[in-house]
Amino acid sequence: MQNTAARLLILNAALTITADPTMGEGLLGVRQGADVLIVGDSIARVGDGIRAAGARTIDADGCIVMPGFVDVHDHLWQSLIRGRGADQELPQWLAACVFALAAATITREESQAAVRIGALSLATGGVTTVVDWSHTFNPAFTDGNIAALADSGMRFVFGHSVYSPAMAEEAARIRLALAALPRAMGLHVCSHPSLSLQSQLETAAGFAGEHDLTLDVHFLEHQSQRADEPLAALRATGAVGRRLFLDHAVHATDAEIALLAEAGARVSHNPLSNLRLASGIMPLAKWHAAGAKVGLGLDGGTNDTPDMFNNMRVAVGLQRALAKSVGTYPGVADALRMATIGGAEALGLEDRIGSLTPGKLADVIVVDPSGVNFAPRGDLVSQLVFCGQPANVRDVIVGGRVLKRCGRLAGVAVKEAVRDAERAAASVWGRARG
Amino acid sequence: MQNTAARLLILNAALTITADPTMGEGLLGVRQGADVLIVGDSIARVGDGIRAAGARTIDADGCIVMPGFVDVHDHLWQSLIRGRGADQELPQWLAACVFALAAATITREESQAAVRIGALSLATGGVTTVVDWSHTFNPAFTDGNIAALADSGMRFVFGHSVYSPAMAEEAARIRLALAALPRAMGLHVCSHPSLSLQSQLETAAGFAGEHDLTLDVHFLEHQSQRADEPLAALRATGAVGRRLFLDHAVHATDAEIALLAEAGARVSHNPLSNLRLASGIMPLAKWHAAGAKVGLGLDGGTNDTPDMFNNMRVAVGLQRALAKSVGTYPGVADALRMATIGGAEALGLEDRIGSLTPGKLADVIVVDPSGVNFAPRGDLVSQLVFCGQPANVRDVIVGGRVLKRCGRLAGVAVKEAVRDAERAAASVWGRARG
Repeated sequence: MQNTAARLLILNAALTITADPTMGEGLLGVRQGADVLIVGDSIARVGDGIRAAGARTIDADGCIVMPGFVDVHDHLWQSLIRGRGADQELPQWLAACVFALAAATITREESQAAVRIGALSLATGGVTTVVDWSHTFNPAFTDGNIAALADSGMRFVFGHSVYSPAMAEEAARIRLALAALPRAMGLHVCSHPSLSLQSQLETAAGFAGEHDLTLDVHFLEHQSQRADEPLAALRATGAVGRRLFLDHAVHATDAEIALLAEAGARVSHNPLSNLRLASGIMPLAKWHAAGAKVGLGLDGGTNDTPDMFNNMRVAVGLQRALAKSVGTYPGVADALRMATIGGAEALGLEDRIGSLTPGKLADVIVVDPSGVNFAPRGDLVSQLVFCGQPANVRDVIVGGRVLKRCGRLAGVAVKEAVRDAERAAASVWGRARG
Repeated sequence: MQNTAARLLILNAALTITADPTMGEGLLGVRQGADVLIVGDSIARVGDGIRAAGARTIDADGCIVMPGFVDVHDHLWQSLIRGRGADQELPQWLAACVFALAAATITREESQAAVRIGALSLATGGVTTVVDWSHTFNPAFTDGNIAALADSGMRFVFGHSVYSPAMAEEAARIRLALAALPRAMGLHVCSHPSLSLQSQLETAAGFAGEHDLTLDVHFLEHQSQRADEPLAALRATGAVGRRLFLDHAVHATDAEIALLAEAGARVSHNPLSNLRLASGIMPLAKWHAAGAKVGLGLDGGTNDTPDMFNNMRVAVGLQRALAKSVGTYPGVADALRMATIGGAEALGLEDRIGSLTPGKLADVIVVDPSGVNFAPRGDLVSQLVFCGQPANVRDVIVGGRVLKRCGRLAGVAVKEAVRDAERAAASVWGRARG
């Protein structure tokens, strides 16, 4: 079959960051100018001077070729609340921006339009896989959300909220629907750990256990959530283990970090969101030292501009600010690793995505460092983290399909997508205020 | 004379942020869709439905029109060290990246090429005035530096280092040269306060006092600089007063903040640089509460990508992280104010730049929020700070002259500029290592 599959050859890169240490130098497996051959939806070869007669080619002359970013925590519908609640912290922001919209009964079309903009703004900045922790306010909302994800061309994990047996039934329906979608990478079961809402968490954890799914919860994002006793709630339901995925984990104590990392819990770090919502500085270096797998998240409406370069920079900088030392984790290469293969590991998807390893899915981006913000080019790995901007992402490929080419989203009517999202926002906010 | 001056009319804006509270709503003087008429190098009128027959027009349909950013602390030659020393903090970084290059005798051409790239990357992101704290390694370097600034079309304050009577003589020469340059806004006298180098500081402070110039010093950027006893050094030279400008001021105590703010010292805050170099979190809210005028700086080679949007976001976020409260200074409007009129005030240039007040110099930017990273458009002021990216800066006008038009630097051979900067970097680093 492989002979008939479409072939795409990425040529002439200045630098190829494989994110696979067995394939090149250092932690990031860096190669000088290796070509990348994609056959069908997968990476076939990475090497020097690859010839592939008849293959389509992408000339990456002078560019950096690397795996697409893996965004391990996001809420794509929250494009609806961009820039809103700018002077609110988590509890007030949730009330004004999330619960208010939950009550407004978002329709399928509105959800689809909002998620579409969220996906486009991630894709154009080089994100190829996203975990969309959806609030799944109602089944129509959920269907619109998933339709937009499926249409986006991006790879995604869908997070379905489960607070009740009815929502578990819905999640079961969605689980089957996702199995039929080519770029869906599974279902996360989303809930909120709180001792006062233990039956909700039991339902979610029970459903996750039954199907061996990840239980994906916001955990001590804001200091006020200590009152929920989330770890006690998780332990009481037997949810502390390798299936547990913790978002934010800003206010975890050393003992909690040790216990959770030891149990195999995985973590999303969302530094820009944490700054905006005054959540605090997440003890990333401690989580890493304890052995937890931590990926980077862009986190929807609280991180209004989906810029993974900025997210990496700030992830590095916040730990340095905390430690007042550059020797702390993460270094520059660590940040780039977290944004790619490290994120894939946190999701348990490292066998399929996150690096340019032959056999893996061909999620590849081409970053053009020829503009004034990189000049003069020197240490390109360091410059990716410190100089990179979303506008430098020239090409984006997911599973061999080109989503962005020469700086433009391919086959996307951007104006119409913006118009639809703005109509949806006007309509939803009109009802929320009404 | 005004009748013969070129007229430029900016029309159809969705939002006009004047940054002058007497001209519109709130702290930022916001107007819905006011036009801006520029005559010659100055703002002539801001109002609704301005007609100006024969004027050139810029159609800002759907865009935000606002004052250009004021970058109160930068080192433009440091494009030469972008991405370098990424895992070093200030003392080591200075040795590897600054002192190493000082010893390499940078030529006029190399300095000019490096500063040119620095200026272009600021201008394309909407910075219209920059303080270029130059290390003025040698007179040829200085001449190249100033030539690049003058050619850039940007407005600038030049910072000349003074550590010796010979450098004071050089600075005196440069002071006269700047007086003949149309967009030069004066000279800062740059030095380093340290009790162990008191004669250097005396020379600088003496020169600054003699000509009533600003004394512009890095102050407690890194905790190790406490050993220099910089405040004692400044007091001993009589430099504590309204002419004093302090860069970074991260590790100042409450008592030092009170004393310096009371004396009228002004401050640059460089949050992205402070993160990268592990300098710590500057107590901005305290400086503000004490009454100090604080502007935002992008700080050259330690903040490799000149992105004032990101700088504003992080300035907001770091204080929130410190306070674990969104109620702390700066709010969103405060951050935008700091990046415009607040920066102008910190430089003592508020009568000439920083807001769209008629009579002031016409330094104006047009930001296009129609892309996927702003959608759906809502509270545009908040979205500027939280969603903005340099690529959204569509047009940049300095003194009525258009530097960027429809997303492209006007009349700039970018490839050649990059090539020249890369040749300069290769040559300089070759000598530094040799």
